[in-house]
Amino acid sequence: MLARTGLLATCETPALVLDERRMQRNIDRLRKRLAPHRVTLRPHIKTPKSIDVARRVLTNGNGPVTVSTLKEAEELFAAGVTDILYAVGIAPNKLERVQSLRAQGGDLAVILDSVDQAKAVAAVSRTAPIPALIEIDSDGHRAGVKPGDPQIEAIGRALVDGGAILRGVMTHCGGSYGAQGDAELEAFAEQERLAVVTAAQRLRSAGLPCPVVSVGSSPTAHFARNLAGVTEVRAGVFVFFDLVMAGIGVCALDDIAISVLTTVIGHEPTKNWVIVDAGWMALSRDRGTQGQAVDQGYGLVCDADGVPFPHLIVSQVNQEHGIVSVRPGSDAPMPDLPIGMLLRILPNHACATAAQFDAYRVLQADGTSLATWPRFRGW
Amino acid sequence: MLARTGLLATCETPALVLDERRMQRNIDRLRKRLAPHRVTLRPHIKTPKSIDVARRVLTNGNGPVTVSTLKEAEELFAAGVTDILYAVGIAPNKLERVQSLRAQGGDLAVILDSVDQAKAVAAVSRTAPIPALIEIDSDGHRAGVKPGDPQIEAIGRALVDGGAILRGVMTHCGGSYGAQGDAELEAFAEQERLAVVTAAQRLRSAGLPCPVVSVGSSPTAHFARNLAGVTEVRAGVFVFFDLVMAGIGVCALDDIAISVLTTVIGHEPTKNWVIVDAGWMALSRDRGTQGQAVDQGYGLVCDADGVPFPHLIVSQVNQEHGIVSVRPGSDAPMPDLPIGMLLRILPNHACATAAQFDAYRVLQADGTSLATWPRFRGW
Repeated sequence: MLARTGLLATCETPALVLDERRMQRNIDRLRKRLAPHRVTLRPHIKTPKSIDVARRVLTNGNGPVTVSTLKEAEELFAAGVTDILYAVGIAPNKLERVQSLRAQGGDLAVILDSVDQAKAVAAVSRTAPIPALIEIDSDGHRAGVKPGDPQIEAIGRALVDGGAILRGVMTHCGGSYGAQGDAELEAFAEQERLAVVTAAQRLRSAGLPCPVVSVGSSPTAHFARNLAGVTEVRAGVFVFFDLVMAGIGVCALDDIAISVLTTVIGHEPTKNWVIVDAGWMALSRDRGTQGQAVDQGYGLVCDADGVPFPHLIVSQVNQEHGIVSVRPGSDAPMPDLPIGMLLRILPNHACATAAQFDAYRVLQADGTSLATWPRFRGW
Repeated sequence: MLARTGLLATCETPALVLDERRMQRNIDRLRKRLAPHRVTLRPHIKTPKSIDVARRVLTNGNGPVTVSTLKEAEELFAAGVTDILYAVGIAPNKLERVQSLRAQGGDLAVILDSVDQAKAVAAVSRTAPIPALIEIDSDGHRAGVKPGDPQIEAIGRALVDGGAILRGVMTHCGGSYGAQGDAELEAFAEQERLAVVTAAQRLRSAGLPCPVVSVGSSPTAHFARNLAGVTEVRAGVFVFFDLVMAGIGVCALDDIAISVLTTVIGHEPTKNWVIVDAGWMALSRDRGTQGQAVDQGYGLVCDADGVPFPHLIVSQVNQEHGIVSVRPGSDAPMPDLPIGMLLRILPNHACATAAQFDAYRVLQADGTSLATWPRFRGW
């Protein structure tokens, strides 16, 4: 362990550190969990935004994969991935770019939840048909059509009659992020399944096709007991995990595969503060654990080997400053953290923190070297 | 106006829009305000991170300038800017990079607030002396030595005796972001001035040099009545302004020069929600107005011409989804915002929102074209 993390002394700080062994363990865990359910795992690349991570998480070289931006789709396609689901409701002004990627050979599918969008997709499908999934609202947290809404058939008809391809239904039970404990997580997973299976049944009863029935969120993927009727599962943050997932109970702290390497740059002894060079520009402003049982501030502080100081959190951030302090309510002493010392911060939300960096510094599984894996960004 | 914003229809969304006329007005306003005080304006480039903006805000081509990362220093130096203050407490592991830029001809100064840092700077100064300013704590909000602390002389001596250059004192009254109204802002500005002038006096009384006496924050820069003893003023966010600054009373909504262009991608009529393609990846997670009199959620919604819907805010965000809703407490109706419509979102915090993008799409002052100005990022 020390040999591996000793490599970090050569890094400029702040830096985004990825522990490849932990990542591989997380990937293996979800694959193993889903295997008996005979569903396709369609990983969401919005978390890693990295070809190197994609290669390790994809079951085969060409997909399937989920993306949150067309930029991700284009980057993955350029790397040889063809089976791509763009899982944000399609805007009409993005359809030209969708068609362009499809014309090059990418099997890029879109999602939508209104007849207006279906008509826009159909209009563009006159030259070449675009596949679309209908987004189903399984928990009221964001977008989608309710499973019992007759709009589902209307959208399906607008697609099929207009010359587009109705590929199926999908949902994301983001509400599961508010769950706590196994029973609640299992209930959210079943609610998610039931929503899409019901919607798929509506379409089929109306004589419409529905080959794909897609569910997904990292919490439900790890707690679903029954996936009958589901054909694929999407999940993103599970490759890295984070403090929010640990707070929900989906992973342990020891599973969190990314952290922000930072240097101690000051002390305010009268306030019992240590200042580090990781502010919100490095950690992000995500406060996802604020509403959980344990509020981790802007992140949990570890030593350079990744071992947590259980009572130390980043309590405040400015752009390039983080203030490390003892967790409110704890009377643990502040350890001696001299100027120049390296620390690592576990993030609240892996997607948000990783997005602040252009590359991962990778503690590789072989333990001998520190690789650099680039990330992509933008839209 | 319509002719200018009509140009935005060609943009992919989300996009970061910069209104050059508003920016120029903001720059002119601060220059005019500081002129009678005969102080140097040392703009902070952590906000724009753009050579194009730097050219417009710097009083002459080669500086002076403030930066928050060595990356900013290197980018500006490559563009011909030489007088640079790196205004985050120096970490010993960054000194080699500081020396490298200085060896190329950049006059890069660092800041520090401990004898340990001063000794580290002095140790590296044996080959070529590095200039350092002592950071003074004017408001207890973050780092720095209290103005009455004898550590100030100890740090000064460690620099001078060790062969480094003691260039002066600096402070940032970040506490002014919590101010409200002219009287409080003026009081913070005076507190900031008094802190550095007192510290400078301590150094000079001890026979130590203190040529530079530097204060700075956008709120205090706009409200200081007395700058006696101060040689330079730093400010960053004033070039763009934002909802936080408007909430404090430093600017009007109409002064905010950046916004996020977004497209309507869905409706949830039962919840009175409109979904847009700007989530936290575009807007950032900054909730800087949360503690202000008017909480603007994740941003205030405007039409494509930049005219606010006063009752519409982005109330929730996911990675690539924003939920637009009527402000809590308002019974204003949701306007008709059809799928595909372009909107613009005013940000809580210009530094954080701009950091989510790689470029500005610029509505230029001449009104005829849409320029693209790249941003830099990273460390």
